[in-house]
Amino acid sequence: MSFDLPVVHNPSNTVLQARLQTLIDNKTKPLASLGRLEALAVQIGVALGTESPVLEEPQLIVFAGDHGLTRQGVSAYPSDVTWQMVENFLAGGAAVSVLARQHGLSLSVVDCGVQHDFTARNGLYIRKIGYGTANSFEGPAMSIPQCGQAMKNGMDLLHSLPGNVLLLGEMGIGNTSAASLLMARFTGHDIAECTGAGTGLNAEAVQRKASTLREVLHRHENAESPMEILAAMGGFEIATMVGAVLQAASERRVVVVDGFIATAAVLVAHAMCPNVLVYCIFAHQSGEQGHRNMLKYLNAQPLLDLGMRLGEGSGAALAWPLLVSACALLRDMASFDSASVSRADLSTSTTSAKASLE
Amino acid sequence: MSFDLPVVHNPSNTVLQARLQTLIDNKTKPLASLGRLEALAVQIGVALGTESPVLEEPQLIVFAGDHGLTRQGVSAYPSDVTWQMVENFLAGGAAVSVLARQHGLSLSVVDCGVQHDFTARNGLYIRKIGYGTANSFEGPAMSIPQCGQAMKNGMDLLHSLPGNVLLLGEMGIGNTSAASLLMARFTGHDIAECTGAGTGLNAEAVQRKASTLREVLHRHENAESPMEILAAMGGFEIATMVGAVLQAASERRVVVVDGFIATAAVLVAHAMCPNVLVYCIFAHQSGEQGHRNMLKYLNAQPLLDLGMRLGEGSGAALAWPLLVSACALLRDMASFDSASVSRADLSTSTTSAKASLE
Repeated sequence: MSFDLPVVHNPSNTVLQARLQTLIDNKTKPLASLGRLEALAVQIGVALGTESPVLEEPQLIVFAGDHGLTRQGVSAYPSDVTWQMVENFLAGGAAVSVLARQHGLSLSVVDCGVQHDFTARNGLYIRKIGYGTANSFEGPAMSIPQCGQAMKNGMDLLHSLPGNVLLLGEMGIGNTSAASLLMARFTGHDIAECTGAGTGLNAEAVQRKASTLREVLHRHENAESPMEILAAMGGFEIATMVGAVLQAASERRVVVVDGFIATAAVLVAHAMCPNVLVYCIFAHQSGEQGHRNMLKYLNAQPLLDLGMRLGEGSGAALAWPLLVSACALLRDMASFDSASVSRADLSTSTTSAKASLE
Repeated sequence: MSFDLPVVHNPSNTVLQARLQTLIDNKTKPLASLGRLEALAVQIGVALGTESPVLEEPQLIVFAGDHGLTRQGVSAYPSDVTWQMVENFLAGGAAVSVLARQHGLSLSVVDCGVQHDFTARNGLYIRKIGYGTANSFEGPAMSIPQCGQAMKNGMDLLHSLPGNVLLLGEMGIGNTSAASLLMARFTGHDIAECTGAGTGLNAEAVQRKASTLREVLHRHENAESPMEILAAMGGFEIATMVGAVLQAASERRVVVVDGFIATAAVLVAHAMCPNVLVYCIFAHQSGEQGHRNMLKYLNAQPLLDLGMRLGEGSGAALAWPLLVSACALLRDMASFDSASVSRADLSTSTTSAKASLE
């Protein structure tokens, strides 16, 4: 199969960006006192191309798939947990189900390649490429056509959904291994630095996992293009997510990136199209070892740091109200003039002087 | 005036605490993978004395007061900004107004001693001790009876309000100085380490502020009891907040602590009654220098770290949805058994083994 990657524009518009900053600086608060929320408001305004950003119909999508590499014993849980957790998401009992309900996020699950046949129902999209990937220890996880189809599935699905925000979630026993492999290839970090406990391996098992992954990396060292690397060592759910991220960015949707695996998908999308980062907001610093360096490579500052390492989109859902706050503050706070509040004394303040002079 | 401090029990109940932890460990997720949210859920459950905590009718209260010490030039803003911002809170244009609306928090303002006469209206409680404190550079900021009355006002007000959560906010030009002074006395840190930019002083002005505060500290070095120290160098809004915190804890309400000034009030309440900490959740790490060490002294881990230094209760309001999430996850997530999800493989996991064996 063949298809064109969507075109992602970089709307970092100095005029709009400067106008957004001036708007924020004139709000009734000391200059810069809203900290990271100010940069967040500017980023969302720039992404959506407006001084009055409103986040609409947010789509939290859990991309699910199984991994042949689990046959090498890289996870503490059996592959069956992937489909069992998909059932749990749909039944409303998983962490991300609870958080999506709390925040009014539309939650859906995409079967990108789970080793199980689901019965059709609302909130579940069957976009299955296969019953789990092949074992990347023995050969490529996906063929190039499979990988391309998975990406196209993500693009098409995203395009069919309403709203201007995509929140990334994922489920797939074995997918921290795939993410570690992608991290090692795209960032150049040694595989040992990219490998962590996943769902809860002990120290010895983490070491075994790292040795296995080192062999996998070696086997696929001839994979060169981002898509070849993704096909060789990724997963169906990661490839589908890559497509969704590219499509979302091309439609100027905000993308809320969850933890280690979702960030790995962004790493791949970024290698294909660096402009995607304009649209990406990194929800949290995961407890999974490696995530810190992955975020550093992307020059990304996560919003939350709560030691979470669950995936599913749980970090993205938790960060969501901060995005809503950033937009609401930008739209609804009074200015010094509109509220008749006095400004700072120029002789004692540096930081406030700039606002006072505007 | 004389009154008894409310009695604050320590309900850290090993039976309930252990039951809460077991409940969380049996949820459908790898052990400990919800990170800080797990401890948060346990803390709220213990505080409210239940395995199914529900946060009800949260009260975000902004305690406002003026400070005679501003006559020494310790703030970048004129004292008039205190009453102007109170008007802004009530008109709905301040940051905390926007955030309270977003989260459905009941927002009220207490005039604890602002240098201004407000017209009565909904959401405003007049509990004025005076038109700003006296200048602590020259003598005590408050008399002991004034300080006691302010504390009693906080206790009575809190007692009259519904719900089981208090979110702390404050407004008072000059009150980072009062908070720095209290911090120096209660934690033993040098005043230079306790003094920061407040609303936005430049480096030179911060240094002048620290010298002024050093003299104030010296003048009041004979103040010994927590209430004497509070009266000498605190503020009407801080004393009223101390009373509200003590009352809230005695009624087993959860207290969401905002930034530098709210934490200073907790520092005083803690000195009067260490058990208050069982009920306190620290919303965020403020950008105000000194807050990190203040939190460290209380052995407190803040939830957010967004570089904010605005006060008003803005940090408490931003952290609020995380508390709601913690309770919802505890109440509503499925267990491994109820959702028929397989558990971890004992041979490769340490952390998951504990859950599997329970």
